[in-house]
Amino acid sequence: MQIDINKSVFERNDALASQLRKRFSENHVYVVDICASPGAGKTSTILATIDALCDEFNIAVIEGDIASSVDAERIKAAGIPAVQINTGGACHLESSMITRAVDVLDLERLDLIIVENVGNLVCPTDFDLGENAKVIILSVPEGDDKPLKYPGIFEVSQAVILNKVDTAPLFNFDEEAFRNAVQTLNPNAPIFPISATAGQGVEEWTEWLAGEIRRVQET
Amino acid sequence: MQIDINKSVFERNDALASQLRKRFSENHVYVVDICASPGAGKTSTILATIDALCDEFNIAVIEGDIASSVDAERIKAAGIPAVQINTGGACHLESSMITRAVDVLDLERLDLIIVENVGNLVCPTDFDLGENAKVIILSVPEGDDKPLKYPGIFEVSQAVILNKVDTAPLFNFDEEAFRNAVQTLNPNAPIFPISATAGQGVEEWTEWLAGEIRRVQET
Repeated sequence: MQIDINKSVFERNDALASQLRKRFSENHVYVVDICASPGAGKTSTILATIDALCDEFNIAVIEGDIASSVDAERIKAAGIPAVQINTGGACHLESSMITRAVDVLDLERLDLIIVENVGNLVCPTDFDLGENAKVIILSVPEGDDKPLKYPGIFEVSQAVILNKVDTAPLFNFDEEAFRNAVQTLNPNAPIFPISATAGQGVEEWTEWLAGEIRRVQET
Repeated sequence: MQIDINKSVFERNDALASQLRKRFSENHVYVVDICASPGAGKTSTILATIDALCDEFNIAVIEGDIASSVDAERIKAAGIPAVQINTGGACHLESSMITRAVDVLDLERLDLIIVENVGNLVCPTDFDLGENAKVIILSVPEGDDKPLKYPGIFEVSQAVILNKVDTAPLFNFDEEAFRNAVQTLNPNAPIFPISATAGQGVEEWTEWLAGEIRRVQET
């Protein structure tokens, strides 16, 4: 909601995000902010990611939702610490919310924090949470034209996950058109076609993420 | 983005919305604001709705998008006047944008204006556009838990469309749980299960809409 926001909202957000980035860096914690539409499979992708990486890394999850804690319950059921943020109507997470969530986590013990943003392809784009990377998940049923319609989030993401690829035959999804649109907006972002629930492609995505985490640990 | 918005933004929006409502009412035009996540099938549902109602009613479409005009092109290809609003990053439509769009339409000749809001389950909730009804479309691939997570838009809608029901076998969608969640939030809203592309259920939805339009024409 760029047109209505005070400049000071962004300034305050960015200042807190810088403090967060410093804390994450000092503790060698890699933070990824997962953004997507409602129902694109954020929580399923996070669960598949935890499953692939929990032997090598200590992981915590920060769950952003307008309301409810169903996602945090799913994460906790997987044995991973999860902090629920209910935004009370707000359509994105801000660094002040992340600060409160991080305060209850033991950063020294963690290697990876996965932030699940509110389901929204627009508003999270402009809010720095101190993360190392934003990753956008698009799901096949949403259609191959979404990078054209929501370019901002594709531009600011360090990687793009295409989820629910097992349903492609049903939805006339043109993966080549999708790849071309993404590469025009963000030539360096890798694209990972996956099925979070069936497991397809999860290895390529989590290998990329593991490489990013190790790079932060070695600095 | 309720937490950051100035009260004056809503006041200004509501004042213009009241003016719009008066203009629509004077011209006996029924206005429906279609809200949904990205990729839930807003444009396909609008095209199916036009197909069912264009013999009886004069229809125009106002297309809200962050960027691009692909949806307006699809509507125009169906022979219906379409006004494209590019919000330039904003995550919802406001009544000032609708006013500019309406200024180029011949209200006297129209019976129905369909507004396609930006794909977003959060921010459009609080913005009155002078419409007679907001209608929320949820698509089966998004999951049956979405009313719990995005309650606001289900509360303010006059009707609920469940799209892509032909894909239900693939997605473990619990329609009874979905119906219960919607009815808890909004006991009076009818729920229309449809497949906009396959045609299933479209008749029930458009019959309801036609009844609402006729009611406005008779006043």
